[in-house]
Amino acid sequence: MATEMNLGMTERLVPIHKEVSEMIREEISPLDEEYLRDVDVGDRWQHTARQTEILEGLKQKAKSRGLWNFWLTDSSSGFGLTTVEYAYLAEEMGKSHLAAEVFNCSAPDTGNMDVLERFGTNEQKEKWLKPLLEGEIRSAYLMTEPEIASSDATNISMSCQSDGDHYILNGEKWWSTGAGDPRCRIYIVMVASPDDERSRHQQHSMILVPADTPGLEVLRPMQVYGMDDAPHGHMHIRFTDVRVPASNIILGEGRGFEIAQGRLGPGRIHHCMRAIGQAERALEMLCKRSLDREAFGNKLAQLGGNYDIIANARMEIEMTRLLCLKAAWMMDQGDPRAAAPWISQIKVAAPLMALKVIDEAIQMHGAAGISQDFTLANAWKHVRTLRLADGPDAVHRRQVARWELKKHTQEKV
Amino acid sequence: MATEMNLGMTERLVPIHKEVSEMIREEISPLDEEYLRDVDVGDRWQHTARQTEILEGLKQKAKSRGLWNFWLTDSSSGFGLTTVEYAYLAEEMGKSHLAAEVFNCSAPDTGNMDVLERFGTNEQKEKWLKPLLEGEIRSAYLMTEPEIASSDATNISMSCQSDGDHYILNGEKWWSTGAGDPRCRIYIVMVASPDDERSRHQQHSMILVPADTPGLEVLRPMQVYGMDDAPHGHMHIRFTDVRVPASNIILGEGRGFEIAQGRLGPGRIHHCMRAIGQAERALEMLCKRSLDREAFGNKLAQLGGNYDIIANARMEIEMTRLLCLKAAWMMDQGDPRAAAPWISQIKVAAPLMALKVIDEAIQMHGAAGISQDFTLANAWKHVRTLRLADGPDAVHRRQVARWELKKHTQEKV
Amino acid sequence: MATEMNLGMTERLVPIHKEVSEMIREEISPLDEEYLRDVDVGDRWQHTARQTEILEGLKQKAKSRGLWNFWLTDSSSGFGLTTVEYAYLAEEMGKSHLAAEVFNCSAPDTGNMDVLERFGTNEQKEKWLKPLLEGEIRSAYLMTEPEIASSDATNISMSCQSDGDHYILNGEKWWSTGAGDPRCRIYIVMVASPDDERSRHQQHSMILVPADTPGLEVLRPMQVYGMDDAPHGHMHIRFTDVRVPASNIILGEGRGFEIAQGRLGPGRIHHCMRAIGQAERALEMLCKRSLDREAFGNKLAQLGGNYDIIANARMEIEMTRLLCLKAAWMMDQGDPRAAAPWISQIKVAAPLMALKVIDEAIQMHGAAGISQDFTLANAWKHVRTLRLADGPDAVHRRQVARWELKKHTQEKV
Amino acid sequence: MATEMNLGMTERLVPIHKEVSEMIREEISPLDEEYLRDVDVGDRWQHTARQTEILEGLKQKAKSRGLWNFWLTDSSSGFGLTTVEYAYLAEEMGKSHLAAEVFNCSAPDTGNMDVLERFGTNEQKEKWLKPLLEGEIRSAYLMTEPEIASSDATNISMSCQSDGDHYILNGEKWWSTGAGDPRCRIYIVMVASPDDERSRHQQHSMILVPADTPGLEVLRPMQVYGMDDAPHGHMHIRFTDVRVPASNIILGEGRGFEIAQGRLGPGRIHHCMRAIGQAERALEMLCKRSLDREAFGNKLAQLGGNYDIIANARMEIEMTRLLCLKAAWMMDQGDPRAAAPWISQIKVAAPLMALKVIDEAIQMHGAAGISQDFTLANAWKHVRTLRLADGPDAVHRRQVARWELKKHTQEKV
Repeated sequence: MATEMNLGMTERLVPIHKEVSEMIREEISPLDEEYLRDVDVGDRWQHTARQTEILEGLKQKAKSRGLWNFWLTDSSSGFGLTTVEYAYLAEEMGKSHLAAEVFNCSAPDTGNMDVLERFGTNEQKEKWLKPLLEGEIRSAYLMTEPEIASSDATNISMSCQSDGDHYILNGEKWWSTGAGDPRCRIYIVMVASPDDERSRHQQHSMILVPADTPGLEVLRPMQVYGMDDAPHGHMHIRFTDVRVPASNIILGEGRGFEIAQGRLGPGRIHHCMRAIGQAERALEMLCKRSLDREAFGNKLAQLGGNYDIIANARMEIEMTRLLCLKAAWMMDQGDPRAAAPWISQIKVAAPLMALKVIDEAIQMHGAAGISQDFTLANAWKHVRTLRLADGPDAVHRRQVARWELKKHTQEKV
Repeated sequence: MATEMNLGMTERLVPIHKEVSEMIREEISPLDEEYLRDVDVGDRWQHTARQTEILEGLKQKAKSRGLWNFWLTDSSSGFGLTTVEYAYLAEEMGKSHLAAEVFNCSAPDTGNMDVLERFGTNEQKEKWLKPLLEGEIRSAYLMTEPEIASSDATNISMSCQSDGDHYILNGEKWWSTGAGDPRCRIYIVMVASPDDERSRHQQHSMILVPADTPGLEVLRPMQVYGMDDAPHGHMHIRFTDVRVPASNIILGEGRGFEIAQGRLGPGRIHHCMRAIGQAERALEMLCKRSLDREAFGNKLAQLGGNYDIIANARMEIEMTRLLCLKAAWMMDQGDPRAAAPWISQIKVAAPLMALKVIDEAIQMHGAAGISQDFTLANAWKHVRTLRLADGPDAVHRRQVARWELKKHTQEKV
Repeated sequence: MATEMNLGMTERLVPIHKEVSEMIREEISPLDEEYLRDVDVGDRWQHTARQTEILEGLKQKAKSRGLWNFWLTDSSSGFGLTTVEYAYLAEEMGKSHLAAEVFNCSAPDTGNMDVLERFGTNEQKEKWLKPLLEGEIRSAYLMTEPEIASSDATNISMSCQSDGDHYILNGEKWWSTGAGDPRCRIYIVMVASPDDERSRHQQHSMILVPADTPGLEVLRPMQVYGMDDAPHGHMHIRFTDVRVPASNIILGEGRGFEIAQGRLGPGRIHHCMRAIGQAERALEMLCKRSLDREAFGNKLAQLGGNYDIIANARMEIEMTRLLCLKAAWMMDQGDPRAAAPWISQIKVAAPLMALKVIDEAIQMHGAAGISQDFTLANAWKHVRTLRLADGPDAVHRRQVARWELKKHTQEKV
Repeated sequence: MATEMNLGMTERLVPIHKEVSEMIREEISPLDEEYLRDVDVGDRWQHTARQTEILEGLKQKAKSRGLWNFWLTDSSSGFGLTTVEYAYLAEEMGKSHLAAEVFNCSAPDTGNMDVLERFGTNEQKEKWLKPLLEGEIRSAYLMTEPEIASSDATNISMSCQSDGDHYILNGEKWWSTGAGDPRCRIYIVMVASPDDERSRHQQHSMILVPADTPGLEVLRPMQVYGMDDAPHGHMHIRFTDVRVPASNIILGEGRGFEIAQGRLGPGRIHHCMRAIGQAERALEMLCKRSLDREAFGNKLAQLGGNYDIIANARMEIEMTRLLCLKAAWMMDQGDPRAAAPWISQIKVAAPLMALKVIDEAIQMHGAAGISQDFTLANAWKHVRTLRLADGPDAVHRRQVARWELKKHTQEKV
């Protein structure tokens, strides 16, 4: 084990963290509700003028203050924060609906930009990475398919036939998050590239598909417990003879999983830290409500098992945050393979913890908790998706177990 | 303990159960989806012609077959089923969105009819009970208020001033389930009737308020994790100088809790048994999906902890069903006070169990599980409300604990 | 489903239950502690004079009152109680250390007597069943082996070679419960009888081995969390060329699992109902302690999550008891194969529930709870063994899951 | 939040950690079993010659290598390790029965030495601290009393009357851990010093009582699930007119809680880290067993929910360890009041986690797991006491909740 594992904030982070937290608390969060209310005005899949004004206004503020692209860790462009440092900021961003995008730190763009930065050609970077880094366009990542168990990603089967200097894609993708946004211009698509010469994890490729390519058809928005997340959206998209230049492939045929491995690590840490931010906010709401209302002659806080609920929430938040910070620190050590077990651990632990805390906060609010009057029900739905996105709990537990068993055997487990 | 506790189906129930189950499976369930889809057509709070056709058509069929008002247990009108017998039917009704209403067995009408039948004057019965029993109108029960912790029902504070031979009501109610339905004509409203002469549980009354009384204003539909349940709805209603004749009071001033005690018991059993029906349906879906899809070279059923998940679901469904049947049997013994601890037990146990099973079924379906493609996400939201409706878990656990402690002490606990 | 499922006490059971309960409460339980204390006097593996006096005295009383061999359900000898009826008595017996033996209803004798009654030859019955029914001798059941995973009983490998009209047994058995008792005279031993002609579940036999057969060597008592359960004991026994007449085989070669199937069902129900009795006793102790002691100015009962702990315990006891009664009722329907899934369910559910309740009772007692001053720690250890005896939880869950899946597929699961 | 929170090993710790780990693995652990077996030889409450040889031999080795009194953190004597550094060593010591004492780092001596070092007079230090630091004598800490709920320590009521320049003590203490050891020479005793002038937490004192003072009577050893932990022991001690010089009081009358506050923090961290060591050892055993044994044609590791069990254990160990290290780091910041909430958190979290992991390891071992053939059952019993020692879970959760609520209110909670 290394001799330094600083999981606290660094000196350079402290002022940035303060600035980001304050901007979220004072400038961004107060606009969340208005932005979300406007979704129901006119076409759900277009921004209203007011939405654009809110979002672009905040983005300009953040950008002009230099609070931009924090996710670009370990980099000469951007802040060059460590993953641990960024994790602290991601937690804060989790407390507001708009915050991550305001700082150009929102999924799925961060993961997509990461792929382009590490593996893209100069041409690909110029065309797609640059406007993404500027916050001018958005992107989507098309992986999951309706007809197969995507929990085993080797099942992915979208056809990608070579045709001269082009590829022709056919099939369906769904849960293409962000593809509903009119600003979304580019998809990174995982496709099958079967080749008997290559191993089981070298049968897939990633390829760039502009959102306006003929043959693409958005069938419908998928709903999360009835919520369509418009105008961001989780879209179901059909590909019919979609032609893209061969140069759109990233890194080369059969290298899809190699890219995915790198892409998903940081993104999962960000998701988990944002979930912790949501848990913190929920616990704060829970405590305040328990102090505000009375029943049977006592504050709710003092009734029944509420002390235990509060204490358990605090303990589980702390433990989960520390685990996420440790995973971030592992990522910062430069060996993604060594960090992978830690990322699988937090991918299981953080959403489960956050769901539990949010659910308790809902229960403490009574019927108000499940209603539109508080953000809790929406927060719950958002976090619930994380138990499925990027691999369901069971797959990550399976990975963690196999790493553990390999400490004790040479055989395949 | 009594010497017979038949928790199985009686001979007379078997053919009824068969007829009801088959009608649900073959005639009602297949129309659920079409009915729900039509909610988004035109005014959400009016039935489309097709919705009316579906619902009234099914109701006529059920009524003409004599499958009607089963909930009217222990009664010369209706079937006179026992609560245990009815519980078996309620479980089946839980498997379909429309079924309970088709058999005129849906909440909140059953509870309201029960109140009127037991405690109503002849005039009240003629005016409201009769059309409810015929399925011609619907009703709502207005209890919970936004400004107080309704978990302690003695907090309820809607003002009800006597004014000659009228009462004048002022205040707000919310989560008035069913009040969105255009067929909803009558509310039973819990109001405060403070009187220092009476005890703490004799400070409230129930009063009948026709839905078209001037001064009533539906402020908005409350949402359940974003779902408005239109056109049924959970409405937020403001009362401004609402005048009703003094004869609309039920049983008399200060007797609200006395009525509530009787009203809530059977309704809670019905809710719980329907939740068990939803759990059964979810487990069936879980098993089928686990057999249909493959990952890592195996059926999902055979992977990881899925055997354990399935086995635990089966065990918990069985245990919870038996507890509900026992509670129903206690109710059939004729002493609601003796049955009360059992009803509090199932009120906690059944929704928690059903939520767990449905959540596992969702997880087994992957992202499809949280989407509009399966009924699971909606089922989860419906059952989630049961942890709050008619008293949150904590209040019922508190009651169960106090009954337990009273076995061992004479002192107040 | 059948049209009557009486899970209550029958009329004929009521007076028996009263007599048994009273004898346990007033005559047997008060002697438990003295009996157990005497284990530490002299040779732990011999009864002291006082132990014999206590135990045989109580047995004579019970026998003379006709309170004897209740377990012999569905039988012309004995009471001919149903399994459901007996289950109620077993629960009472679970509340005292000595009670089951006092009524000649203790494991492993009941299971062994059951085997002999159903499958024994007249000679076997005369020699072993008769004195067992009279309570003159005791017996053991030798199944588990140290070198294999006995959770998969097909792993059992004790050698049993035919040698003329004898068999010669070699190998080791452990956890031979009751084999430490000087009154234990006969073992029923599961041995391997490999035969390629027969199926996987026809490779084992059961054979009678008198405890004084040469070649038997008790190596040591196994300990349960340090407890040796003397003088009953869970013995580790080595077989070295142990010769028994061929006529000692039960039912015939290869029929061991066929016998086990029948033997284990009722025994598991008894174990589970006794565990429920222990849970009831623990909950009573928990409540009393919570009312007796004070901290922070309140009775313990009123502090923190104690209401929730008490309520959950009550609910889980009730649900588990009902499931056990249902399993007993299934057994009474005469088709052990149909009852098997139910027995697997309670085999998992009842010990887990009882352990949880006892653990909470221990925690409520503070350090006294884990000490020799209360029976709770011992109760916990006894019940903990039930999660392993007769198959670990995981194996029973596996069975329950497979039965569930078979409802939905013709394929092997 | 501070700008550095290094929870990893420091450079100076790495070689020490290696030396300590190796000595435990290679020299100490291999003797654990022999030492424990000798408890049953002769008088359980005296060391056999072989026990003395093993223990003193190892102590001399450790001392001569300078591996001694690591617990003496933040100190010029000893290593002056930080609490975080020591925590890593405590985890290793948790893996062996003897290790903590071998390095003179065992409870309750460390806590007692800590009290004497911080608060003792020079005379007290000379007489008792010096030989304790040398490992020549041992000590006990007498707090809990049989007749009161010690979870609320203000209930403690041992009488301590001033009598000239002496105090006279009367009452009973139990669970006096280590008082069974013949080398135990000195007790630190918490007594009541009621004084209406002082606040509720200034009504108690700590006083030194030599173990050979007349009037002390060891009534019996308390048992932990039947285990007496001889010759260390948890003794029940009666005080009858026990006279000690007034100079034996520590810090002064009424300052008992002030001392306890300081004393208990580090001790709780040590206990928790040792529990983590036990969990790690249990997980290792679990994995190895799951790879060694087969059932139903597969390694146990690959069956049912075992991947999930292993993954959850790994995740929970990691999270709990990080929380303990954070609590240790808080302690190192020099403000025990700020560290207190963290210590309460780990006091709840670590034993619960370790019990769960050990219980799963037991279950994976089948009946062997609960037997004397593996250390698991003993480990479970040891860790189980930690849920009660130094305050039961409920009291610590109460504290954590109150700290949390105080963030949101000025009122008393």
